[in-house]
Amino acid sequence: MLSELRAVLGDRLDTSPDALEIVRSDRSGYVSAGAPLGIVHAESVEDVQATLRWAHAHRVPVVTRGAGTGLAGAATAGPGEIVLSTARMTRIHEINDVDLLAVIEPGIINADLNAVLAEHGLWFAPDPASRAISTVGGNIATNAGGLLCAKYGVTREAVLALDVVLADGSLISMGHRSVKGVTGLDLTALMVGSEGLLGVIVGATVRLRRAVPGPVHTIAAYFPSVRDAAEASVAIGRAGLTPAIMELLDATCLATVHAHLGRPTPPLGQSQLVLRTDGPDAREAAEAALGILRAHGATAELAATEREGEDLLIVRRAMHPALETLGYPLIEDVSVPRSKLAEMFDAIAAVSERFDIPIPTLSHAGDGNLHPNLIVDGPEVPERVWEAAHALFQACLELGGTLSGEHGIGVLKQRWLAEELGETQHELQKRIKLAFDPLNILNPGKVFARS
Amino acid sequence: MLSELRAVLGDRLDTSPDALEIVRSDRSGYVSAGAPLGIVHAESVEDVQATLRWAHAHRVPVVTRGAGTGLAGAATAGPGEIVLSTARMTRIHEINDVDLLAVIEPGIINADLNAVLAEHGLWFAPDPASRAISTVGGNIATNAGGLLCAKYGVTREAVLALDVVLADGSLISMGHRSVKGVTGLDLTALMVGSEGLLGVIVGATVRLRRAVPGPVHTIAAYFPSVRDAAEASVAIGRAGLTPAIMELLDATCLATVHAHLGRPTPPLGQSQLVLRTDGPDAREAAEAALGILRAHGATAELAATEREGEDLLIVRRAMHPALETLGYPLIEDVSVPRSKLAEMFDAIAAVSERFDIPIPTLSHAGDGNLHPNLIVDGPEVPERVWEAAHALFQACLELGGTLSGEHGIGVLKQRWLAEELGETQHELQKRIKLAFDPLNILNPGKVFARS
Ligand SMILES: Cc1cc2nc3c(=O)[nH]c(=O)nc-3n(C[C@H](O)[C@H](O)[C@H](O)COP(=O)(O)OP(=O)(O)OC[C@H]3O[C@@H](n4cnc5c(N)ncnc54)[C@H](O)[C@@H]3O)c2cc1C
Ligand SMILES: Cc1cc2nc3c(=O)[nH]c(=O)nc-3n(C[C@H](O)[C@H](O)[C@H](O)COP(=O)(O)OP(=O)(O)OC[C@H]3O[C@@H](n4cnc5c(N)ncnc54)[C@H](O)[C@@H]3O)c2cc1C
Repeated sequence: MLSELRAVLGDRLDTSPDALEIVRSDRSGYVSAGAPLGIVHAESVEDVQATLRWAHAHRVPVVTRGAGTGLAGAATAGPGEIVLSTARMTRIHEINDVDLLAVIEPGIINADLNAVLAEHGLWFAPDPASRAISTVGGNIATNAGGLLCAKYGVTREAVLALDVVLADGSLISMGHRSVKGVTGLDLTALMVGSEGLLGVIVGATVRLRRAVPGPVHTIAAYFPSVRDAAEASVAIGRAGLTPAIMELLDATCLATVHAHLGRPTPPLGQSQLVLRTDGPDAREAAEAALGILRAHGATAELAATEREGEDLLIVRRAMHPALETLGYPLIEDVSVPRSKLAEMFDAIAAVSERFDIPIPTLSHAGDGNLHPNLIVDGPEVPERVWEAAHALFQACLELGGTLSGEHGIGVLKQRWLAEELGETQHELQKRIKLAFDPLNILNPGKVFARS
Repeated sequence: MLSELRAVLGDRLDTSPDALEIVRSDRSGYVSAGAPLGIVHAESVEDVQATLRWAHAHRVPVVTRGAGTGLAGAATAGPGEIVLSTARMTRIHEINDVDLLAVIEPGIINADLNAVLAEHGLWFAPDPASRAISTVGGNIATNAGGLLCAKYGVTREAVLALDVVLADGSLISMGHRSVKGVTGLDLTALMVGSEGLLGVIVGATVRLRRAVPGPVHTIAAYFPSVRDAAEASVAIGRAGLTPAIMELLDATCLATVHAHLGRPTPPLGQSQLVLRTDGPDAREAAEAALGILRAHGATAELAATEREGEDLLIVRRAMHPALETLGYPLIEDVSVPRSKLAEMFDAIAAVSERFDIPIPTLSHAGDGNLHPNLIVDGPEVPERVWEAAHALFQACLELGGTLSGEHGIGVLKQRWLAEELGETQHELQKRIKLAFDPLNILNPGKVFARS
């Protein structure tokens, strides 16, 4: 069977054991039951179409993969499956600074695209913390968020049009180059965040912004408790301020990063809120924020220079590597209405105590997205930890939140999906998947559990 | 059959001939072949569910209707169909100024919602020119745009969650109160703009903004030709300015409104660009814009007061009634990339000449959406006029645009839908419709032509 595919693709079909081992997992820690059949390193739309025609004819499951940095197990592949990597499709076809769009291939790394755009005074706003290592196609397929998205939107707001290869190998173009359009059902929006279930993105017309002129101002504020920090972040929003960045680190996070960076141990319970303002009123906004933070009990400093501002963000940016010093972090990703942030922190503390699991938590406070990190001994996640996660999800749903703010469902969260969607909607979503992919060959067993 | 429904709904089922006559059309001028069976004036979710259970059991087609201001014929009903009006469901359940959201019923009029929100210093940004007469449910189902949407987004960006009654009467909740969320497929985004095909929106959680503080500044600029005006609007964007409003009226529009308002006849060929800036840098932005406009050959004035600014917008706001003095306007709605605006005006002029039809055109220049108004003698649109429309659509598609920027497909544009989507995507969209509505009872024959 594979020989047919090799005849078409030559050495773009990779069956080396080392490569196959890598694609059993992503950055979630999930590892599939065994190695897949092979990996197609697609270099063109035709490669993708040839792979899907073959897979469709033989009913071979296809796992589309970008850089494999996902945190939900959605790009992992197991026995009998073929991996279709779009990572080598990295061309930029067009950058248009009048229509503020770029036409790109899906495999380009977010930071690489932004480096080129910066030369034109432009940027692609979605900025997951993984922007230096994740592909724009992956960002689109997960609807990635980031530090800036409370102000500048998530990936969905930045996608105008997509070229998609469907399960049977046919190619369609959805969306349009114009900023507005309501012609037929909005399949472009549906593709965003669809985790490789509906089709393979082989081209994208993304929306750009002009670089925001003028200096940015950065504030680091320290609070005696995470509750105070959460409430101050709500007060910032209430005052009509929209910082470009507003990140919250709870006490365990702060202490862990400080230790990791060799900085002095912060006082017990101390939490950090770090803010950045930009745009024409950046300075006034920063000063107004400073007043609010202090009124909420913070010790706060406004960086005098942009360089000092970058320094203040170092702690936040070192979060991921620092957490790994504690053990194995199962990175959770709940999202609640902003007003419920403090209550969600309370709930996390209660779960941490009840299950006796450290859960250092950081939050994109501007949009109510929290990353509770359940610290485990190794990638094998014991059932007790899943029970703790379950308790977290329930608390989050009770507060009007959602299971996943930006990482997706993949394999790790599917057992809770029906609880949030309800049985009727869950079934409807599966019917929509089948409308795209009647043989269910695209990433089967992801998002929707195998039945 | 109807008596069963009457037993449940009482006089909320309306079969009076006058009422039935009204729902044969909307504001597009399209009139259905005959009167429908009846109109349900739903007052609750239960009324909607009861109607759909009945319709599903008897396979009666259901046309959901808000205020009936649509411009594509999507809310019109014919023989054998039942109209399900959500216009009486007007409650506001919640206004939350921390999470910046409101929970509402679909029938509330856009301007009524905004009047209440204004008391809280809040607003719902989508502002179709019909905001005083159209429902928010209708705005959602058409993904309405408006004057402000180049800066503040279309309806899609303002919808967080929806309660939807499906074709069989079951009720589901999609989306979430949190601003972020990627749990399962994004059905909320798919519902936006779906023109009554997928389900009945019975509740919505919409995203609010805080009122933009500070004065606004308004400019009216007059150009010797529409091309000059179009190019100036592109230059405004290129300079990094994002006016809240940027509307373009071609020469025929301008002359027609002037006549309608009893103002002096403008010089032949003169076109108007009207701009409004807001926010912290409103004044600087207005002055920068003034410079650019003059450099592009405009005679331009910056209003000294906000009141004077409102006066400058009177011409634009009187556009719809003024056009009706010319004859019967078939309001078209193409959208192109901003950089193609001048070329699209050229194409419209060519079509107008070739088919000998006056086509006064106005444009939301900030986002490349144009409304060419084909002037006809009466609501019967002769085939020659459709041919002219066809030529317009082809020009628009060649420029990378789309058939409809904000009004939708309804009945009036379905013959061109497959041309834009391609056959494969057209079939896929129909399969998705059937995944929601297997018996095809929801607005059949709209968007997708009857086969
Ligand atoms: C240190 C670190 C920090 C992170 N920070 C963030 C963050 O701030 N915000 C955030 O949202 N995420 C974050 N992530 C998660 C991850 O980086 C994102 O989900 C990212 O968008 C995945 O991109 P990828 O190219 O690695 O995709 P992969 O992991 O390869 O794939 C992810 C999903 O996309 C699908 N997919 C990939 N390419 C295509 C395609 N061409 N067509 C169709 N489907 C495709 C896959 O099938 C899979 O379902 C972080 C991860 C790490 C390791
Ligand atoms: C003078 C004038 C100016 C206009 N200006 C604009 C403009 O600037 N921008 C713009 O976008 N449009 C504009 N329109 C068009 C129209 O007002 C919009 O399309 C509006 O959103 C329709 O709202 P409605 O309540 O009248 O919906 P209707 O016309 O009743 O219905 C429109 C569609 O929505 C569906 N629908 C309605 N309610 C529901 C529901 N509860 N659940 C599911 N489906 C539903 C219907 O089935 C139909 O497909 C204008 C119209 C007029 C007459």
